[in-house]
Order: sequence, then C-alpha cells, then structure tokens
Amino acid sequence: MEFMEQRILRDGQVRPGNILKVDSFLNHQIDCRLLDEAGKAFYEKFRDRGITKILTVEASGIAIACLTARYFDVPVVFAKKSKSLNLDGDLYTSVVHSFTHNVDNTVVLSKKFLTDKDKVLLVDDFLANGKAMEGLIDICGQAGAQIAGIGIAIEKGFQCGGQRLRDAGYDVFSLAIVDAMTDDGQITFRH
Amino acid sequence: MEFMEQRILRDGQVRPGNILKVDSFLNHQIDCRLLDEAGKAFYEKFRDRGITKILTVEASGIAIACLTARYFDVPVVFAKKSKSLNLDGDLYTSVVHSFTHNVDNTVVLSKKFLTDKDKVLLVDDFLANGKAMEGLIDICGQAGAQIAGIGIAIEKGFQCGGQRLRDAGYDVFSLAIVDAMTDDGQITFRH
Repeated sequence: MEFMEQRILRDGQVRPGNILKVDSFLNHQIDCRLLDEAGKAFYEKFRDRGITKILTVEASGIAIACLTARYFDVPVVFAKKSKSLNLDGDLYTSVVHSFTHNVDNTVVLSKKFLTDKDKVLLVDDFLANGKAMEGLIDICGQAGAQIAGIGIAIEKGFQCGGQRLRDAGYDVFSLAIVDAMTDDGQITFRH
Repeated sequence: MEFMEQRILRDGQVRPGNILKVDSFLNHQIDCRLLDEAGKAFYEKFRDRGITKILTVEASGIAIACLTARYFDVPVVFAKKSKSLNLDGDLYTSVVHSFTHNVDNTVVLSKKFLTDKDKVLLVDDFLANGKAMEGLIDICGQAGAQIAGIGIAIEKGFQCGGQRLRDAGYDVFSLAIVDAMTDDGQITFRH
C-alpha cells in the first residue's frame, strides 16, 4: 500500500456528506515529511518533462508545491484568490467555484510569472470537482504555457474532477484515489 | 551582507507608499531554495528551544513555514483566514486587520493542533505592522502554548510591528530589516 493511502487510513476521518478530513497532516496541520515524500514521488513521475515551474493555488496547495519544487529545483508560482492591492500590472484571471466554501473566487496570477516558454506541473493537495485545477488550466491557456502533468495528494475518485481531466488528455498522477467512503469510516482506494 | 538582503537588492522593487515588492521570490512566485536557506537560518538560531510546532498564517507564510519545519522535523500549523465549512469542533479565533487588503480577517485555528504542551516558533514572510503576528500570539495565549521565538524573512523596520514585539519581550529574528526606502529605489538595511 502506498504511503498516502496508509496515512489516510491512519489519520483521516470520514464525516457524513462524503467529507474526508485530513486536517491533521495535509491542510491545517501539515506533516512536511509526508509532503516531502509526495514531492519526491511527483519528481520520479515527471522528472523527464522539462518542467520550469510548479503551479498551484493558495492556500493549502502552497505546502505541497514548495516541497515538490525542491526536487525539481524550479520556482513555485501560486494563483491568489483575490486581487491584492500589492499585485499590479497585467494579471491572468479565472473564476473558480469553491464547493467547500460555496463561493466563486477569482484567482489571479501575475503575467510576468507565467509565459509561453513555461512547462508547468500543476499540483494541489486535493482533487474533487476539479474546479481549482480547471482555473489553473485556464490560466495556463491564457499564458500559452504547456501543462506537463498534474500531481495530486488525494483524489476523490467518486467525484468527477479527475475523470474529466483525464478525458481531456491530462496526465493526472494522484498519490491516493479514494473511490468510496462509508459513514462508518470504511475507505476504498482505487488501484 | 546577508543572503536575504542581497536578494532584496537584486530582485525587490520599491514602489511609492513604502511598498516593497518581493513577489518574484517570496509571496507570489517563490524561490524555494531561498526559503530553504531561511529555514536553515531559523533552525540555527532557535534549534535549542525545544520547538514542537511551526506556526504561521495563510497564505504566504505557509511556504517559509514548511521549509523551516523540515529542519526542525516538527509539524506546521497554519491559521486560516476564515471559518471553513470543513473546520469543525473547537476553534481558537482572533481578529486581524490587514493593511494590505484593508479588511479585518478572522483567523482561526483548530484547538486540537495547539495546546499548552507546545513550544512554538512563529514564522512569516513579512513583518510590518505586526497585526498577523499579534493574532498568532493571541491564539498561542488562548492555547497556553509557549512562544519560543519569531522568525521573519523581511521586516519593515520603519513600521512599528517589530519594535512592539521586541518591547513585549519576544525574540524576533528577521533575516533582513529594511530601515528606509526612497522613491528612487534606495534601500537601507539595519545592521
């Protein structure tokens, strides 16, 4: 069994409504040793793709992006969820619906940090409906940047995001794919 | 000259209104090799303090927190800027004013990730007015957690945050302290 699956079984908590709480190691408290292992796995998968940037969206994607970027020795760029007064000049923008918070967020990325010369690895801690990832893909399209692959810590395989991205031809590499959860806490992984 | 000062001089941009833009390496695009060096410097300074957690606030503090935590081999916990539907149970909360965005944010932290057994290192990318740091200190007070030190990448020494924290007895270690900036881009560091 893979390391991310083991960790989900040990520390993840299933809640009603298909919620998988992993806030003790992934998105509130962060086990950086685990994310370092995730970054290494992404590097082993995508090392030959000529990647120039690791791209993610704030906030919880930043941790896994940074620990991945160390292996590739390239910068992280993270899309911001609202227009900051300190972000000036030309911006790529995309509207992303968050089902978690039930709001539309405009994510923005400064044009100077993503161009048609970039080959990017998109990473995030979670993939469920895939809306955040589609926002990043939209921004890559605006920039003319190539998408070399997508690295995900935990994919909810029973939601449509991963399937839709794979159908669109993206190379989605998820360290754990949860295919089913029951209210009494049983978790089934895809292999 | 220290590495963070060198990087500010090379890639930072001074804008009217005492704005120092470091978005090419610190808080939009992130140079993880630089932040790794920052984490190492924090570790050398605070390694003997018995630190159990690295505490920061989303979003841009997460990167430096993670690359610091690797050296200490302890978890990161980051305070979140609003109440997420996925955050349940008991929360510490504190209201933080953001001068950058001119809004009050409520930052929250799950009680299960910070207790009176913790000795924490607070880290952030920027220290200016110190409002975010005061929110984290407030939360540590609620938890009964000890604050072993504060690590900052860039302090704006001409704003009051650092002085107020030092006057209150905190051990604030900033990798670069900017004492003055002129509109034509001259930067004076404190030594």
